[in-house]
Amino acid sequence: MAERSARVAIIMGSQSDWATMRHAADTLDQLGVEYEARIVSAHRTPERLYDFARNARDEGFQTIIAGAGGAAHLPGMTAAMTPLPVFGVPVESKALSGQDSLLSIVQMPAGIPVGTLAIGRAGAINAALLSAAVLALQDDSLADRLDAWRAEQTAQVADYPVD
Amino acid sequence: MAERSARVAIIMGSQSDWATMRHAADTLDQLGVEYEARIVSAHRTPERLYDFARNARDEGFQTIIAGAGGAAHLPGMTAAMTPLPVFGVPVESKALSGQDSLLSIVQMPAGIPVGTLAIGRAGAINAALLSAAVLALQDDSLADRLDAWRAEQTAQVADYPVD
Amino acid sequence: MAERSARVAIIMGSQSDWATMRHAADTLDQLGVEYEARIVSAHRTPERLYDFARNARDEGFQTIIAGAGGAAHLPGMTAAMTPLPVFGVPVESKALSGQDSLLSIVQMPAGIPVGTLAIGRAGAINAALLSAAVLALQDDSLADRLDAWRAEQTAQVADYPVD
Amino acid sequence: MAERSARVAIIMGSQSDWATMRHAADTLDQLGVEYEARIVSAHRTPERLYDFARNARDEGFQTIIAGAGGAAHLPGMTAAMTPLPVFGVPVESKALSGQDSLLSIVQMPAGIPVGTLAIGRAGAINAALLSAAVLALQDDSLADRLDAWRAEQTAQVADYPVD
Amino acid sequence: MAERSARVAIIMGSQSDWATMRHAADTLDQLGVEYEARIVSAHRTPERLYDFARNARDEGFQTIIAGAGGAAHLPGMTAAMTPLPVFGVPVESKALSGQDSLLSIVQMPAGIPVGTLAIGRAGAINAALLSAAVLALQDDSLADRLDAWRAEQTAQVADYPVD
Amino acid sequence: MAERSARVAIIMGSQSDWATMRHAADTLDQLGVEYEARIVSAHRTPERLYDFARNARDEGFQTIIAGAGGAAHLPGMTAAMTPLPVFGVPVESKALSGQDSLLSIVQMPAGIPVGTLAIGRAGAINAALLSAAVLALQDDSLADRLDAWRAEQTAQVADYPVD
Amino acid sequence: MAERSARVAIIMGSQSDWATMRHAADTLDQLGVEYEARIVSAHRTPERLYDFARNARDEGFQTIIAGAGGAAHLPGMTAAMTPLPVFGVPVESKALSGQDSLLSIVQMPAGIPVGTLAIGRAGAINAALLSAAVLALQDDSLADRLDAWRAEQTAQVADYPVD
Amino acid sequence: MAERSARVAIIMGSQSDWATMRHAADTLDQLGVEYEARIVSAHRTPERLYDFARNARDEGFQTIIAGAGGAAHLPGMTAAMTPLPVFGVPVESKALSGQDSLLSIVQMPAGIPVGTLAIGRAGAINAALLSAAVLALQDDSLADRLDAWRAEQTAQVADYPVD
Repeated sequence: MAERSARVAIIMGSQSDWATMRHAADTLDQLGVEYEARIVSAHRTPERLYDFARNARDEGFQTIIAGAGGAAHLPGMTAAMTPLPVFGVPVESKALSGQDSLLSIVQMPAGIPVGTLAIGRAGAINAALLSAAVLALQDDSLADRLDAWRAEQTAQVADYPVD
Repeated sequence: MAERSARVAIIMGSQSDWATMRHAADTLDQLGVEYEARIVSAHRTPERLYDFARNARDEGFQTIIAGAGGAAHLPGMTAAMTPLPVFGVPVESKALSGQDSLLSIVQMPAGIPVGTLAIGRAGAINAALLSAAVLALQDDSLADRLDAWRAEQTAQVADYPVD
Repeated sequence: MAERSARVAIIMGSQSDWATMRHAADTLDQLGVEYEARIVSAHRTPERLYDFARNARDEGFQTIIAGAGGAAHLPGMTAAMTPLPVFGVPVESKALSGQDSLLSIVQMPAGIPVGTLAIGRAGAINAALLSAAVLALQDDSLADRLDAWRAEQTAQVADYPVD
Repeated sequence: MAERSARVAIIMGSQSDWATMRHAADTLDQLGVEYEARIVSAHRTPERLYDFARNARDEGFQTIIAGAGGAAHLPGMTAAMTPLPVFGVPVESKALSGQDSLLSIVQMPAGIPVGTLAIGRAGAINAALLSAAVLALQDDSLADRLDAWRAEQTAQVADYPVD
Repeated sequence: MAERSARVAIIMGSQSDWATMRHAADTLDQLGVEYEARIVSAHRTPERLYDFARNARDEGFQTIIAGAGGAAHLPGMTAAMTPLPVFGVPVESKALSGQDSLLSIVQMPAGIPVGTLAIGRAGAINAALLSAAVLALQDDSLADRLDAWRAEQTAQVADYPVD
Repeated sequence: MAERSARVAIIMGSQSDWATMRHAADTLDQLGVEYEARIVSAHRTPERLYDFARNARDEGFQTIIAGAGGAAHLPGMTAAMTPLPVFGVPVESKALSGQDSLLSIVQMPAGIPVGTLAIGRAGAINAALLSAAVLALQDDSLADRLDAWRAEQTAQVADYPVD
Repeated sequence: MAERSARVAIIMGSQSDWATMRHAADTLDQLGVEYEARIVSAHRTPERLYDFARNARDEGFQTIIAGAGGAAHLPGMTAAMTPLPVFGVPVESKALSGQDSLLSIVQMPAGIPVGTLAIGRAGAINAALLSAAVLALQDDSLADRLDAWRAEQTAQVADYPVD
Repeated sequence: MAERSARVAIIMGSQSDWATMRHAADTLDQLGVEYEARIVSAHRTPERLYDFARNARDEGFQTIIAGAGGAAHLPGMTAAMTPLPVFGVPVESKALSGQDSLLSIVQMPAGIPVGTLAIGRAGAINAALLSAAVLALQDDSLADRLDAWRAEQTAQVADYPVD
């Protein structure tokens, strides 16, 4: 299979997760990293999950960002079926505010890792930054862009609070 | 495929879960319900999970008892791939005492149900009893045995505590 | 007593739980499963609870869906007095967001099972689906309808998120 | 029915709860308050619970101390069926250390009160002291004994810690 | 000191707690139990707390209902200085939704009991009902009114939910 | 009243807290800060608490370290009655591992501060270090000793882990 | 370096924390304590953090109030690099309501203390009061103002709640 | 500076963390990935942290595994000062079983990512596997070894549990 241009896959359990996960997409846009965003529901489309995860490396993806809420199985099940680095984003859930999402994603047993980020928007942004950091190890241009992004972030912190 | 004699499948994520899940097996033995116990790891053997879950109905199983700990994806992923009733047993985990197991199993999104029991041994016993209650709906002999088991349980409660 | 047409009883602790539990009713409607919805308060109408639970099997019910919030005793007390499968729905509570409801329902001692679903609306829908899965074991037509419902659910998952 | 000499009933869900609840008994012994200790399981002996709770006032009890663990329904269900003051003791559970017991007992809905004490031994002792405080309102001799017990407790607090 | 007509004291840590605690007052009004409501802040008015608690019995109070939020010390400190039964109401706090209030009130050490009710409005109502249950032990008229209140509560539970 | 030599008071709710609080004492010994350790139970000796807290400044104390567990009211009630800085140490409790102690101490309402340290031994040591840091603001010799203590702590961190 | 007039530094991780931390500033204003408020992000401006913390004593600050939310590292890292007393304010976070902020600040290891206040506004006010209490040890005029502030707070507590 | 042979740095807050973190080292050994293990305490050796983090890329490291417990600031502060991917391991803490460690590490604000693994030993092993997955993106031989490791892990899962 020909290598795709998208190096990062952003997958999520449902359309409703996009409100969170689009922040991952926006951040990758800022850094000039190509990605592809798909809906892959571990529970409602398990076949799609199997197909996606088993083929992700051959499709040319290098990292996978997976967001899900509640009993969030998408990141861990993806990691079970691909050797690629998988980064999990716990989406904030209604009743438990994402505590269920967080524990369902981060408490993986030994053998199958998911690098887990914070609950919600911050986690989505950081999953993108972490993917970029991984890709930058073999892409000096991206490393420079990431350094610049971080320097800009630092520069934008004001010295004093304002009312 | 010929119908199997085992009507209940007891699956678990690892050998270490057997210390908990054998209580389900023991209870089914007491009730005269045939079962089969297998190790199916969602994370380490995802293909086995896929094969098991998709074929469970054709294998003649009528209910599935699934036990797992930590980021416990086995019950939910099984339920995603079979129309059979799935009952989940949160195995007590080391650091979080099964709170992670419980939330990972019970907080399933709308569309894919897992009937979840208590953390640990009590949950394993109750998953067996619940499976028996389901099977008893179409098996009067089992219904009688289950009634007797319950009556015996009631009879064994002493009136007064003893030192 | 003559067998009733309703195979599923949906009981709840108060009128206010109906906002959650009606999702169970709606789901059973979609699947063509007859049910009856009643208010049975474990705390305010304990006699009614005793009468309901002890007679549920004779009334012809095959599964019971019980929803309650806070110190939620309805599912467990019902299960104590009927051999039928009982599925519990933790209703989201005000201060603790249903964490109290969940633990009060799921942490049943060995001997009396309650198959517990997720907190709130998702749990109500899934209690209906789980009841249907149980009934489908002896009702091929319902099994077909449930398969179709699940297939439709899968088909409705879009491939890509949209803004 | 003739009034019994025991003014306090100590009930518990199982023999295993006695290790905790005997501290209530010991404390009532110290205060010279007659009590009766019984095993009443909400889940395994619901009829016994029903009989006990509905007759408790006529039996001459004035307060009820109820201890249970996990999905602890005994205190609340008792309170649903008697107008007597009910004091609940959350017994420490294995996996969740009594957090489930506490929430199952204390989070009663408006209308049916359970005065809840601390998890475990401290709660059992305090349930006895609270019962004594209630009875002392109409028993000057007991009031004096309770005052003396409290004064003695104060007197026994050393001024300085010792190695 | 002459005996007061108010048999129940309702104390609270601040004016803002009145939104919760007035439900205790309303319930006592319904039951015809005289009470007095005061603001007593353990932290801002410790002298007032000492004066109140040490004199409460002499003032003729028979039970004390104490509501507070956050690090809620009012119920426990009151119980430390009076032999009267003290019932605690955890007021819902902003960040932690009353989990801090609940633990600060219920987890009293052995020796000083606080009968704790549910977080928020339900707890305030139930503290009033529990006080009434205590007073009814020596007041047959109140016992009748409490029985009637409970019967009315039961009668008002509809049989079926309505949309 | 003549000024005492002890500048720090270490108070605790019971003898059993000394196993934790002696680490505060040991640390002050290392730093050459004089202290006095006393048992002051908020619940069992409220008068002693009152006397201690109201006189602490006049006794010459400059900071107060207060340790307690469960529904831990000692630090906050002390802070309510003295203008001195109060530092609270949540002692690890049996059932809830100090989560109750922590919330009971740290969640003080606006107006009465308690500077709270970590649960258990680490918190006791740090309460001593924080008291020393406060006293060092007006004691150059102590400031030097504290600097040396911190430098030594840094120097003792090995570069590499050893088996 | 010349001693600055500001004796208290109020630092916070971002502009958004100012909504909380300004309550610390307002309280210091009321007490006539000079302070300086700065934004110092542990994560986005680590160099600024190092510079601030290492120089804080030489700049003339006597106490530091540090507020941050989520994985809140600012208070602890500041305390690692200054011998001054550091008081931490857990800012309420979106998903976890400040539970993460609280644990990240209060659970410091032995050796590096952070005196932690309540989550949110109450904590910010109390951090200011605690700083004032520390400074008052060597400033009689401030001690008088703090006593007056506390007396006024006590005087403002009404005796009775109003609707 | 010459490039080092070690591609992964394993850092930890104290010698006591090595019992957990050595599992990361063992796993990297199995995979043939060179690493270097160091003690870097955010709180006791902040200068060492600063030096390490700012120079980690120039030293030739490609990923950093950071383990810490309690108020665990090491992973996040390292991530603040290096563009390399940082993976955090929450070490199990005494009182709170690593819940504090987990939240302190995973809840990083947007802008500075830490890919967080499970609490304890499982997390340490998985941090090594995730580092290997990252390095394998540019090292086909390692990719093959990682594939083999995963295949072996799958092969070792028995089909049936044994007593």
